Amino acid sequence: MPIKLDQNENPYDFPEELKAEALRRMAARPWNRYPDLHADTLRDAVARYEDWDPAGVVVTPGSNVLIKLLTELAGIGQTVLTVNPTFSVYTLEAELLGARLVQVSLNPDFSLPVAELRAALEREEPGVLYLTQPHAPTGHVDAEADVRALTEAAEAAGWIVVLDEAYHQYSRSDYRDLVREGPARLSLRTFSKAWGLAGVRVGYLLASPELAANLQKLVSAFNVNLLAQAALEVALEQPGYVQARVAEGIRERERVLAALANHPTCQALPSQANFFLLRTPDADAAYRHLLSRGIVVRRQDKLHLLAGCLRVAIGTPEENDALIAAVDDLR
Amino acid sequence: MPIKLDQNENPYDFPEELKAEALRRMAARPWNRYPDLHADTLRDAVARYEDWDPAGVVVTPGSNVLIKLLTELAGIGQTVLTVNPTFSVYTLEAELLGARLVQVSLNPDFSLPVAELRAALEREEPGVLYLTQPHAPTGHVDAEADVRALTEAAEAAGWIVVLDEAYHQYSRSDYRDLVREGPARLSLRTFSKAWGLAGVRVGYLLASPELAANLQKLVSAFNVNLLAQAALEVALEQPGYVQARVAEGIRERERVLAALANHPTCQALPSQANFFLLRTPDADAAYRHLLSRGIVVRRQDKLHLLAGCLRVAIGTPEENDALIAAVDDLR
Repeated sequence: MPIKLDQNENPYDFPEELKAEALRRMAARPWNRYPDLHADTLRDAVARYEDWDPAGVVVTPGSNVLIKLLTELAGIGQTVLTVNPTFSVYTLEAELLGARLVQVSLNPDFSLPVAELRAALEREEPGVLYLTQPHAPTGHVDAEADVRALTEAAEAAGWIVVLDEAYHQYSRSDYRDLVREGPARLSLRTFSKAWGLAGVRVGYLLASPELAANLQKLVSAFNVNLLAQAALEVALEQPGYVQARVAEGIRERERVLAALANHPTCQALPSQANFFLLRTPDADAAYRHLLSRGIVVRRQDKLHLLAGCLRVAIGTPEENDALIAAVDDLR
Repeated sequence: MPIKLDQNENPYDFPEELKAEALRRMAARPWNRYPDLHADTLRDAVARYEDWDPAGVVVTPGSNVLIKLLTELAGIGQTVLTVNPTFSVYTLEAELLGARLVQVSLNPDFSLPVAELRAALEREEPGVLYLTQPHAPTGHVDAEADVRALTEAAEAAGWIVVLDEAYHQYSRSDYRDLVREGPARLSLRTFSKAWGLAGVRVGYLLASPELAANLQKLVSAFNVNLLAQAALEVALEQPGYVQARVAEGIRERERVLAALANHPTCQALPSQANFFLLRTPDADAAYRHLLSRGIVVRRQDKLHLLAGCLRVAIGTPEENDALIAAVDDLR
């Protein structure tokens, strides 16, 4: 079995006893009947977990779907504003749906280009602004003051502001309070990372009831199947396992970064997510070397500012040991 | 428990032994890993079952999602052409995505208005034409010559032609051969009706590899979760149960229609699907009368041509007996 460090997944499966309970519920429910039209039971459970108004929660099969709906909501011909590099789905959906895509280069230290983004917010026809915290694929976390200033400026200029918090558990950051303060802001979250449920495909957003209602209209009916609903209900009833896994993920990330700190040719860049960038002298050679050791990572070296970079997820301690040894031999 | 005849579902759950096998496969797979990017294993299984090129198959969480993607593909500002009344999701997605929606009235006998549709195909900017066989919500099946003539005229004029065959098992009709003959045609199918898997939410289309590739680009990555993939793999390996259920559904439909044939005030309209329209003197009163007997149906009386109509699904023989008795008392 290869060591899969290419999709930023949690290295551990859903806990066995929770899986068994989810399967029991699936077995007991009729598969021939349509599920909840808008997954209301699941929305309520998410709302309780996140201390949010259920009317402000939208759930879909993966947050990719939410990004598509946000692009639709922004309106065709309007603007999707993000940084460069950025999460590929923002730009892909903008291109597919014919939105105007505006990307502003990150600063060389991967922090947000605040002045340039402010200028773009004033200059462009309003649409959707993505602020990703922690940022993907860099793992960078910005100063809260910068994120707040951009959010407020964007909302004042008529934009919808998306705080994409897919990895927020690993940075101990949380923008719910900022989202609560304005009607055109939302937090995008997922069960695919810290929760270890990438295979079940559920993402959600937290927004004002008005913004959520506008997005919910665009969601296809019966979007989340009964199987995923059952799995997520169990996870949200017994979420205790997440905390220990996140703590280990953070501990392991710091251990791996420290172990690679003195490498003669590769640079492991700091990260607040469950992955990090490894800058190598030759990404193709490094990628193939790791593959020869059974380790699969993601090349990012063609992206702006990321020459030579591979994106590497944090695995189990054993997987991380194998990674450290393999990178160690890369010289 | 109410008798649910309002969503055109199969009245029987997925067979117990298949459910158990699907749950075993779900249990054995890691939930923390992303599923197949484009559900390739499932696409291959659908292709084998339908005797179709796998490159021409697209699967999504329900065919509603495919209708959304078709509306996107048609291009914003272009035309969605369908009849009136029609399946609500065609018109809903056209409105949500800002497409130009053109509806032509069905003939009073619910057959396709061939001349008017031909005129619209020539007059309008091309987009997507929906031909629903059997039609929803009427259950009407058109002459194959009419469907063929419209398909060929539409394709020649630059349209994409959607043969929506969600209920085709119940009409013993099958437009795969017609779809095979042209590059801009597709058949839309679902596991939610004859297969009895509405809760699992999987729909698919059969098209040319070129058209399928263009649609696949619009499909969100990892769209079908691992749970649904496991369930559908099992169904497609052991599809034998479907035939017996469809045969019973058809037999029961004819029995119900015959039993209601001499009703003094209500008219059960002929249908080739797993549902039929019941024309009543007062839809509201009839709906509430049935509800008082524990039977839930769908009001359609606000729709064009359907004054007084309720849409009623075919249930189990016992459910149908209850329906017949309740309608009998409605006089």
